[in-house]
Amino acid sequence: MRIHIFVTGGTFDKEYDEIKGQLYFNETHLPEILNLGRCTVDIDLDTLMMLDSLNMSDADRSKIAAQCGACSSDKIIITHGTDTMVETASLLAGAGIPKTILLTGAMVPYKFGSSDGLFNMGCAMAFAQTLPHGVYITMNGKYFHWNKVKKNKQTGYFEEI
Amino acid sequence: MRIHIFVTGGTFDKEYDEIKGQLYFNETHLPEILNLGRCTVDIDLDTLMMLDSLNMSDADRSKIAAQCGACSSDKIIITHGTDTMVETASLLAGAGIPKTILLTGAMVPYKFGSSDGLFNMGCAMAFAQTLPHGVYITMNGKYFHWNKVKKNKQTGYFEEI
Amino acid sequence: MRIHIFVTGGTFDKEYDEIKGQLYFNETHLPEILNLGRCTVDIDLDTLMMLDSLNMSDADRSKIAAQCGACSSDKIIITHGTDTMVETASLLAGAGIPKTILLTGAMVPYKFGSSDGLFNMGCAMAFAQTLPHGVYITMNGKYFHWNKVKKNKQTGYFEEI
Amino acid sequence: MRIHIFVTGGTFDKEYDEIKGQLYFNETHLPEILNLGRCTVDIDLDTLMMLDSLNMSDADRSKIAAQCGACSSDKIIITHGTDTMVETASLLAGAGIPKTILLTGAMVPYKFGSSDGLFNMGCAMAFAQTLPHGVYITMNGKYFHWNKVKKNKQTGYFEEI
Repeated sequence: MRIHIFVTGGTFDKEYDEIKGQLYFNETHLPEILNLGRCTVDIDLDTLMMLDSLNMSDADRSKIAAQCGACSSDKIIITHGTDTMVETASLLAGAGIPKTILLTGAMVPYKFGSSDGLFNMGCAMAFAQTLPHGVYITMNGKYFHWNKVKKNKQTGYFEEI
Repeated sequence: MRIHIFVTGGTFDKEYDEIKGQLYFNETHLPEILNLGRCTVDIDLDTLMMLDSLNMSDADRSKIAAQCGACSSDKIIITHGTDTMVETASLLAGAGIPKTILLTGAMVPYKFGSSDGLFNMGCAMAFAQTLPHGVYITMNGKYFHWNKVKKNKQTGYFEEI
Repeated sequence: MRIHIFVTGGTFDKEYDEIKGQLYFNETHLPEILNLGRCTVDIDLDTLMMLDSLNMSDADRSKIAAQCGACSSDKIIITHGTDTMVETASLLAGAGIPKTILLTGAMVPYKFGSSDGLFNMGCAMAFAQTLPHGVYITMNGKYFHWNKVKKNKQTGYFEEI
Repeated sequence: MRIHIFVTGGTFDKEYDEIKGQLYFNETHLPEILNLGRCTVDIDLDTLMMLDSLNMSDADRSKIAAQCGACSSDKIIITHGTDTMVETASLLAGAGIPKTILLTGAMVPYKFGSSDGLFNMGCAMAFAQTLPHGVYITMNGKYFHWNKVKKNKQTGYFEEI
């Protein structure tokens, strides 16, 4: 049993640039996160892009779908910005990939010490091992089918629709 | 869908007593952990005891089993010290409770800033929602059937047997 | 012996708005910082403004100077954004206030878990008790006379000139 | 201007052994602390011992005094357990070393994420640069002459006597 993790960026991986006083992307923190979680699951990890999901294009989403289809594992976790996570989930569902695909992210950067990222990654790791094939979002301790979820932009919580 | 969390102590909830220079138990950090994870799952939370699991008696384990049987939810998470987690899982399995019961814990106290606790709680939250009835341990990103796992005392990792 | 702390904002007190994905000011973290440092020095604390120092006006600086002159203590710490800390120090020196005035700040927000803020506040607390009257900046473990320092914008370190 | 830091152990540098579930000493965290504080002061750093100060012997204290006398800098910081910090300060004062010597420590280990250590190190760094020759303890944002201080064992705060 192996899980393939594709990193696409999102708040999860944002850092603070102390010179410019801005948030930015450097390297992914996934290896550090898995290490902190003392995770012993066999993992393949690929960084596909490092994007704020508001800047993700159709070409980017197609690339994610192609990688999900091509990888050898049928259990996939995608780290993704929360703003357009539902759009990417929808495109992935349309691609009809016969695998269990979980999208997750964070509302607070992992490096800020008070992030939901570690909890969300735990949820994604577990759901990827147990849910049947399909495309899901996991946030806030729950999983949602790709076509039954929206992000509440006022509260930052994901809700069933 | 509700999940019942029973707190029994363990490294998870240990704190540092700055006057005595020792680790001790105060209140559980579960509410803080669920809040950090931005968890919106409906939760019932009960602290049954605050024990280092090396000090857990048969009477303590019987109390845990009775509470698991009596609560209204059929999805249960028990936070527990790692040293005797397998013994408690075994007793719970013997009790034949028709529910999904996950035991989890941490190798590093949640308050120490570098704990596996938040990740493990994410895993437990997800596995509790998706695994069939039975008694399981979740540590290191994996789940283990109660009778197919041991803690490797040299490495601190849980291993399938 | 009392020390008066005036809060003016700066990176020190910036937080992450998880809904908007931006840095912003809420309440000052100074009470939390002093508590973490287990500080028992008698402190008066006033928040004068909560500004990115790039947005600080002459009127703001005049207000700071007036408050420094008016307060009853002759030992003052001002938390301030680093970008224009030298300008404010210069204006304060021009005001000829017969007190020991230390300006300090942080390159990383206190809430991000990897901030220099706690160290800088320790330095400011100590220098305020020991330096003769004058206007100083303390950053990077050093103190600088107001007219002998610049911020190196490439490295983010303060340097003697 | 150089400051010589001598590490002797204490709560400051204690870590959590996740296998044994106990606190222990590994390497000092001083380089990490100075880096976090973005400290640019010229520092010489020597680890003399890694001891809980309750276990410090007269021979250990004599070694510290000898090193303080022998080093080339006249500004010295000693990190030390709080329980017998006053005893060591007294012995150092008796040695009549013509230097500014600051002893400091922490009530909570640096690695536990809620430590007073970074603040105390900031204070020590500043006091070492500004106080006249003598032996001092700095804790809780204050400095104390070696013979005018005691640790209140009930509260964990240092008090003037």
